[in-house]
Order: sequence, then structure tokens, then C-alpha cells
Amino acid sequence: MAESMKGLKRTHRCTEVSKANIGETVTLMGWVQKNRNKGGIIFLDLRDRSGIVQVIFEEGSIDAAGFEKAGRLRSEFVVAVVGKVEARSGAVNEKMATGEIEIRAKQLRVLSEAETPPFPVEEESKTKEELRLKYRYLDLRRPDLQRNLMMRSRVAMLTRRFLEEEGFLEIETPVLGKSTPEGARDYLVPSRVHPGNFYGLPQSPQLYKQLLMCSGYDRYFQIAKCFRDEDLRADRQPEFTQIDMELSFVDVDDVIDVNERMLAYLFREVLGVEVPLPIQRMTWQEAMDRFGSDKPDLRFGMELTDVSEAVKGCEFAVFKNALEAGGSVRGINAKGQGGMPRKKIDKLVDYAKDYGAKGLAYIALQEDGSVKSSFAKFMKEEEMAGLIAALEGKPGDLLLFAADKNKVVWDVLGALRLELARQMELLDKEEYRFVWITEFPLLEWSEEQNRFTAMHHPFTMPMEEDLPMIKTNPGAVRAKAYDIVLNGTELGGGSVRIFQNDVQEMMFEALGFTKEEAYERFGFLLDAFKYGVPPHAGLAYGLDRMVMLMAKEDSIRDVIAFPKVKDASCLMTQAPGEVDEVQLRELGLKIDRAEGQTEQ
Amino acid sequence: MAESMKGLKRTHRCTEVSKANIGETVTLMGWVQKNRNKGGIIFLDLRDRSGIVQVIFEEGSIDAAGFEKAGRLRSEFVVAVVGKVEARSGAVNEKMATGEIEIRAKQLRVLSEAETPPFPVEEESKTKEELRLKYRYLDLRRPDLQRNLMMRSRVAMLTRRFLEEEGFLEIETPVLGKSTPEGARDYLVPSRVHPGNFYGLPQSPQLYKQLLMCSGYDRYFQIAKCFRDEDLRADRQPEFTQIDMELSFVDVDDVIDVNERMLAYLFREVLGVEVPLPIQRMTWQEAMDRFGSDKPDLRFGMELTDVSEAVKGCEFAVFKNALEAGGSVRGINAKGQGGMPRKKIDKLVDYAKDYGAKGLAYIALQEDGSVKSSFAKFMKEEEMAGLIAALEGKPGDLLLFAADKNKVVWDVLGALRLELARQMELLDKEEYRFVWITEFPLLEWSEEQNRFTAMHHPFTMPMEEDLPMIKTNPGAVRAKAYDIVLNGTELGGGSVRIFQNDVQEMMFEALGFTKEEAYERFGFLLDAFKYGVPPHAGLAYGLDRMVMLMAKEDSIRDVIAFPKVKDASCLMTQAPGEVDEVQLRELGLKIDRAEGQTEQ
Repeated sequence: MAESMKGLKRTHRCTEVSKANIGETVTLMGWVQKNRNKGGIIFLDLRDRSGIVQVIFEEGSIDAAGFEKAGRLRSEFVVAVVGKVEARSGAVNEKMATGEIEIRAKQLRVLSEAETPPFPVEEESKTKEELRLKYRYLDLRRPDLQRNLMMRSRVAMLTRRFLEEEGFLEIETPVLGKSTPEGARDYLVPSRVHPGNFYGLPQSPQLYKQLLMCSGYDRYFQIAKCFRDEDLRADRQPEFTQIDMELSFVDVDDVIDVNERMLAYLFREVLGVEVPLPIQRMTWQEAMDRFGSDKPDLRFGMELTDVSEAVKGCEFAVFKNALEAGGSVRGINAKGQGGMPRKKIDKLVDYAKDYGAKGLAYIALQEDGSVKSSFAKFMKEEEMAGLIAALEGKPGDLLLFAADKNKVVWDVLGALRLELARQMELLDKEEYRFVWITEFPLLEWSEEQNRFTAMHHPFTMPMEEDLPMIKTNPGAVRAKAYDIVLNGTELGGGSVRIFQNDVQEMMFEALGFTKEEAYERFGFLLDAFKYGVPPHAGLAYGLDRMVMLMAKEDSIRDVIAFPKVKDASCLMTQAPGEVDEVQLRELGLKIDRAEGQTEQ
Repeated sequence: MAESMKGLKRTHRCTEVSKANIGETVTLMGWVQKNRNKGGIIFLDLRDRSGIVQVIFEEGSIDAAGFEKAGRLRSEFVVAVVGKVEARSGAVNEKMATGEIEIRAKQLRVLSEAETPPFPVEEESKTKEELRLKYRYLDLRRPDLQRNLMMRSRVAMLTRRFLEEEGFLEIETPVLGKSTPEGARDYLVPSRVHPGNFYGLPQSPQLYKQLLMCSGYDRYFQIAKCFRDEDLRADRQPEFTQIDMELSFVDVDDVIDVNERMLAYLFREVLGVEVPLPIQRMTWQEAMDRFGSDKPDLRFGMELTDVSEAVKGCEFAVFKNALEAGGSVRGINAKGQGGMPRKKIDKLVDYAKDYGAKGLAYIALQEDGSVKSSFAKFMKEEEMAGLIAALEGKPGDLLLFAADKNKVVWDVLGALRLELARQMELLDKEEYRFVWITEFPLLEWSEEQNRFTAMHHPFTMPMEEDLPMIKTNPGAVRAKAYDIVLNGTELGGGSVRIFQNDVQEMMFEALGFTKEEAYERFGFLLDAFKYGVPPHAGLAYGLDRMVMLMAKEDSIRDVIAFPKVKDASCLMTQAPGEVDEVQLRELGLKIDRAEGQTEQ
């Protein structure tokens, strides 16, 4: 039976009691972590979000009924304890914040009893995630998850504090918006008042924030929920949170300046980590050439080397064909991996194939000076020597080569580089290496649509010096776009926006849109731009991912209170679920299961 | 043609330039409010979100091309001006923050031209709202709307700052949740992965925040978007924003304490208004008896008087029948309104009928001592005198009476009291009168459902002393619920929650739910409550309404950046709209117009 807390008032959270309180009577409330009777004394670990404190029950200090009640306590009971703070009688526990004291209970109330939970509430749970998510309310009691959510709250708070001081206004934009055919799939919300019509949940507040710049709000931000109805991967959720911002009367440097100061502030305040400013910048071209990725992990080297020149004229068909088709041959040197067993190398080849490689050529330099290679037989000796020299291969090194179109070569070697770093344990979670990637291509060719598409979005500003090429060589035009990358993860990205009608028209032309098509898609923004629009630029961060990295977690589900699983369902609430026929009728909808996908 | 801002960097916002900057060269950017050529000098009012500054162009200070360009500027052009700050040559304009200075332009760039806007950008626009909402991006340039959104940003920021200092964590809860059959109509989101299933958008994070208390987060808050698919009234939007909070190990007084300190902090920081603490408390019963409303406006008196005793035994059928049916007769005294023309009184009668009255009885006390009354003929003289005495009627007063069931009498007189206060101009927008309403009834009888329903929600804690009545006289049980009311508007409300299984079972019984029904609706919360739940309580504010009152606006649309209109559509984006057949097929849905409502 639950007792009332009437007449009691909590005085401290568990770990707010310290040596300074010795002699005081305190009232604590929390959950029973564990209790044990040792030689007639009951030792109770009392837990709340601040941590754990030890409470002792001893006859004489508490009446017999209280002592007896204490003996019946079980894990996860909620109790209130009134007691006196004393120096710990036993050994001081240095691992506990409250390790020097204990509470000698004078009074105990059981506020709520608990059944035995389906898994223990403890750090680094080994319970499988599915069960933990079903009982998320218990999982969320675990101190590691509590620390993560407290960190998330703090990151959001500090972000707001920083941006407010920089003159940003937080302005809420609609969740019930217009569905647009561009980009990823929208979540739709049927309208009851207008049957057959739908709202779209926003994939980002992009158009609204540009409108707010047109309206003169100068500096906008929002920590906004965004939605994408895409098939989920490990680091994706149907709904996710963006730190979204937009600034007027600025260029690239202004956006980078305020953002790197913000990042430095967050990492200093939350983690005590100093981010040296300015953060390194790298063009997209350099990032691809050196790391095979537009989100390079700079915590280790193993850079790509273009060996096209060294193998020019060789007889190895794979290399030859790649070069003749306008591609390249590039390699990486996995230092000290020359002795890797053949089976493991084969796994790397399979891995490379997952990223689009037709194969992977390797040279394993043995410590004894001998060489194992998948393609030596097709190469002249001096060509092999040239390759090894180009990659600065030493005995004991493993050299890996990909040959294909540039894009494939980058993807493959970029991915391999990371996989090898994981195997070689080169990734230090305590190290934070930031880099700005700049000068992205404005457009990329879509084989599927047989036209250029916008790499960021159709409102991204081309670099002035490249503008003349937009008609002659659109693929070569660089954009005023920038991504901020941390340890190989894209934290955020943005761009300077087009604000001139003539540039916008050129952009639409390059994308193959007629004026009518452009209007159909972005009409109200184009209309707004007729009435005086300031130069503006912006950036958006994935908050979930940022906190995940700060908390050194591997999944964003560990920094979200109530996440969904791969099929976009919630294991705790069983959402999504069925609804009444009446509700559907009001919306003018019928379920047509035959038409629906059945994939799970 | 737009010029680039290349090489220029804004040094100040318009009104950040003051006498202290005289002699300095500044670079300003903004919108042309107006410009006029007066005796060969061009006077330009330059506007940004901070306000307006005057720029002058004079040949000699700027080259001929620049001067000529300045002459061609029109309203809403976006320009950059480099110029020298000077003491104002003409009369000092005391109404302007920058009234003592002007900028003598040396350089001018036109960053963006503007077509003539469909309505002028000016304070207190007389343009009808429909047109303003269509061009919301222009409407949002108006200084009054900009002040409102800046205030809203500040209120949210200060709320977070206060709550963080009080130990609250901001935790995000899902937007894609489970649809529940209770309460208002949910917006639904069809699932693509599970065709025929739907998410529900949250009407509030109620269940999640209670789960977070179960999980030990102790103090939670969120500034959360909530959704209700209801027919819109003036102060409703399909999506609205709540300041939502929940606290563990607390009772009513603790919640009230932290919240009234928060309100005092917000009103002091934002408006410079001191809210005297503690805020007055009034039971629901007292509020109904004295003001006929559970959200009484205390800026004026005109309280209700129960005259049932005075008219007991009278022959006037309306009074008699009401009393015999267990109702009451009550009146208000509109001081000094005794001379109100008959036509205006008739309008009051109609108004009363809108609130459910069958009629309205009045006594108009003339200045000359005579009496006009709708029902005097049915009354004895001493009965009339008794009525007048009960309401302290003086010559010149208008006494209005309603007779019916208590609920109708309260509704009618509560509404009349407000209508008369508006007519008599008793409502001072500069005055802020707060009151806590407490001890609400736990249950109210629903004629429609022929059962008791929860007045707040089924997890609201009954008052301990009333608990024994829950089986014998459920309607008389009071709840540990509280609303905070400002000037007759409910700003927020909440309650202490049930955390004991046995009390929860009694509550469900009182609501007529079987255990199975209760589980079907609230299963995961009831499950969570098995594993140790702390006493907890919470409160939620309507942020839109709070900012509306602080900004002295009459509509929440004036404190929302992109509001929807009465049919839940957005006039700017035309949302909701039609979507591709493909999208519907993926969701397993068919539109069935015949079934849909067609109301607009």
C-alpha cells in the first residue's frame, strides 16, 4: 500500500547531501537501488536522477515498525526517508559522490511499491534493445540514459543562450505545412475540413526561414522537429531535431564565424573540451581527393593517393579500362597491415564491393621483403615499384587500390579507410576533430532523372567566379555551401542562398525547370522575393547526432527519450495503430490494403 | 538589378547608431521605408527589425551616380548605405530612437529591388487580415508584428532560463505518437510501413511526461507543439504551443510556488510589471458563486448575488420554477446603467440567450427614483424591495437576474458581466490581475454519455478528505487541480496526479470504465505505474495566449508567425493541398469524397 508524502518535504536530491551536511536532518525521496541486511543493519542505496546515497536503518535510530518496513523494501520501490547525515561508519566509497557520508534513517515511508522489473536498472545494460524499448520508462531510469538526456537538455539550453546573445530570435514555424514533391518523402496529414487534401510535416523549416529573412527578422533560429518518411537506418528516425538558423546581410565567413564560436562554446561548457579556432577548412575537392569523402574523419591519416600517373600504360585491364573511361586509380596504405590473413583481405574486398567497387587490388608488403599481390602478374616490376613508392609502402604495409570512375573510387576507398581505422583501433572517442567542407559542387548529374539536380537545394548560391560556367559547364560550378564535420560525421550544413531573380532563373534553367514548373513548386517563396529580399545564408545541425557524439554513443536512440525502431513503430505505445472507421469517414478516406505496401 | 554586398560588412542595426557615434563612418543595411527629395536633398528612412534611421543623400557627399540611384529608390528596396553619423541638421525627432542623428551617405548599393507591395508596411495596418495573411511575409515586416514575435522569442527564452535554474530538464517527446480515443479529435498521420495504421499528433505530452516522472527525471518541461483537429474559434489554432511541465515529490503548494515565481519573473523581465506574490487563490466554488466563471476577470467587481432566498415564495413563474427544479436565482448590478435604452437591454437579453438563458429579468432603477422592470407585475412590492436591497441597487443602476439550473445561471451572468464590462469600458489592458482557481470538481456529469467524465483527465488526484465520497457522491468530490487565470483568460492549468493503484481503480470505477477498458486506453501508463511511481504533479500553459495577453493583442494570430485561418488552411502556402496518387497508394489509402465532410 502506498503511503502519502503528506507533511514531508524533500530537502535535497540524493547526491546534494555531502560532508557539509553532517549532523543535519534531511528528507530524501527516490528509488531503492538495492538493500541488504548486514549484521542487523539494513543498508539501502537510494537513487534519484542525481545519483545514489547510502541510507542505514538500525534499531534504536528508527522504531521497530520502520525497521521492519525497511527490511521488506525491494528494488524500485519509491520511498521517502527522514534521517541524520553522518560520516560514513564503514570504508569511504571513493567511487560515489556521496561516498563519505551516510544517512541514518529516523523515518521511512513507502510511497510506491514495485513489481520486479523485467530487467535490472543498471549502467550499460546488457538487456537487448527491443525489451528495453518496450519498457522504455524503466530503461530511462538507467543512469547512462539519464546522463544523456540531461546532456541533451543542456546542449539545447546553451545553444539557445549563445544564439540569443548573438541577436538571434527563436521563431516557431508550422508543423502542419504544405507537402512538396521535392526531396525525401513527406509524412502526410489528412485534412478533415478539406477532405482529399493533406498537410505535409516539414522535412526542415527551409522555406519558412527564408521567408522570415524576407520579412526582416535578420537572425532566426529554431530547435525544430523535422520529419522524413524514409526507410530507417541506424542513425535515422522518422522525426528528428534540427538546430536551424538563418542570417541576413551575411556571406560564408560570417556564418562560419558565429557557428564555430557556438561549437567551441558548447564543447567547452558541456565537455570541457577546447575546440581550437578557427576550425580548419577544406574544399570539397580536397576532401574527396585526400579522404574519399565529403565528411572526412581527420583523427587519422591513411590518405588517398592518386596513382593514375604511375599505372598509365600498364597492362592490367582493370586499371587500364578505368583510366580509358576517364576514371582514376587510387590507393591507400594501411600501415603495418601487410601480414593481414588472406581471409581478412577477402572480407575487405567484399566490403569494397558493397560500396560499388568491381574489385579491389592489393599489395601486401611482407616484413621479410617479399610481396603478395592480387595483380602483380599483370604489372611490370618497375610499375609495381612505382606504385609502392607512390604510397610510401614499407615492409609490413598493406596497399589497397581501387580503379573506376572517380566517384566510385572515392566512395570505395573512403569507406575502406574508415573500416581499416576501426579494425586498427585508430578512432579515439575522446578526440574531437572538426573540419569545414566548402565549395561543394552546385549540381550533380542524376542518371535516373537524366538531368542535373541541386546538390543542396535549388536556392543555393553559386560562387560568383563560377557563375559564367552555369550554362557551358554546369557540373563544374561550385556552390557557396558548407558542411561542418566532426570525426567523420556531418554535424550540420548550409549555404548562402540565391537572392537575385536573374541568378535564380539561371539555376532553374540548369535544373531543367520551366518557369511554370519552378512556380508550381516554390511559388510563394518566389513571390516573396519580388518585394525586396536581403542577402541571406543559413545552416542546420542534427541535434540528435551532435548529442550522440558528445555523449560518445553509437546510436541516436540513446539520446532520444522515446525513439522509434526500424519499422518506424514505437515498441512502448504500439504506435502507429488502427483508428475508428468514423475517424476515417470524417477524413474522406478509405483503407485500400491491396494497394498498400506490405513490407515490414 | 541587384548589386552584391561584397566588400561591405554591416556595422550596426539601424537604431544601434546614436549620438555616441557622431563622426563615425557606419555601414547599415535594411529596407527603404520611404524617401523624398526636399530641396535637392534626398531623405531616406531606412528600416530593419530594430527600427528606423534617417539617411540623407546630398551631392558633394556622394557621387552623382549614387545620388541619382538614391532618387530612384522605392519602398521596400533593400539597400546598403555607407555614411557618416551626424547630428541631425533639421528638427530633432523625439519620437524616433535615432531622432537626434542622421547618416550622411557616402555610398549606396541596391541589394534588391522591390515591386510595389499589395499593402503598405506600417503599424496598425488597416488592410484586411485575409490579404495580410496571403502575403504574410510582407505583413511580418510590420513593426507591431515584429515586436510581438520578438516578445514571444524572449518569453520562451526567459521561461527556459527560469525553469533550468529551478532544476527542470527540457525533454522532447514524440510528435508521431499513438492516437487515443479520449478528448478532442486527433490529427492522424498514415503509416507507409504499416498501411492502414496511423500515428496521432499529440494533443499534449501528458502521458509522456507522467512516464518521465516514473523514469525519475524529477522535473521535466518542454515548450511543445500540440495539435487538435477541432473547429477553430478566434483563439484556437490547429497547432498551438504549450509550456508543459511536471514535477515529482510535490503537492499543490509546490507547483503553485514555482509557477507564480515564474510568472512574476516573466512579467517583470518582459513588461516591467510587478506581480504581487503570493497570487490570490480562490476555490472553484467561490469563483462560480461570485463571478459565474472558473476564469473570473478580477479587474472589476459586478459580482453575482444569490437572491434565491429573497424571491423564495414569489409568484413569478420563471423564478419559482427555477427554484423548484433545484436551481437558483442570481443577479448582478450594472452600476450607472439604469438609463440603458430598451433596445440595448433587449440585446443583452439576446446575448444571455446565447449562453443558454431562457430569458433575462431586469430592474432598471431610474435616476428619478422610478423603476422599469420586466417582471415587477408578478412581484410583491416588498419582494422587489428585497431584490434591490440584495443587490445594493441605487438610483441609476441596472439589475439583471437569471433563474435556472446553477450551471446556466453562472454561465449567463458570467458572460453578461463581461459583456457589460466591455460596454462600460472597465477592462484596462495595462492591469494584470492573476488568480489561482483551486478545488475543481473531480468529475462532471455528462448528459450525453450518461456517466461521469473527468473534468481535467482521469489521472487527476481527488482531495484526500473527499475520497470517501467517491462512491457515495462522486459529483461532490473535489480534485487537486488548479488553473492560473489572468484577466479572465485561462493561462494554464494542471493537477496533482493519482499515483496509487487503488485510487486509480476507484477513479476508473467512478468513470464507469471496466479494468479492461481502462487498460485498452492507458495500458502502457498503467503498466509503468507498477514499477514504482513517485507522487507527481504538473501544469501546462498556452504560450500563444500568454504572449497575446502580454502583447495586448486580441488574437493569437498576431503572435504566431504563420497562423492558419478558420478552415485550418494557410492562405500563404495554400496548405492543405492535393497530393500525388502515388503517395496515397504507398500509404494504402483511397480518397472517398462521397464520405467526406464538405463543410468549409
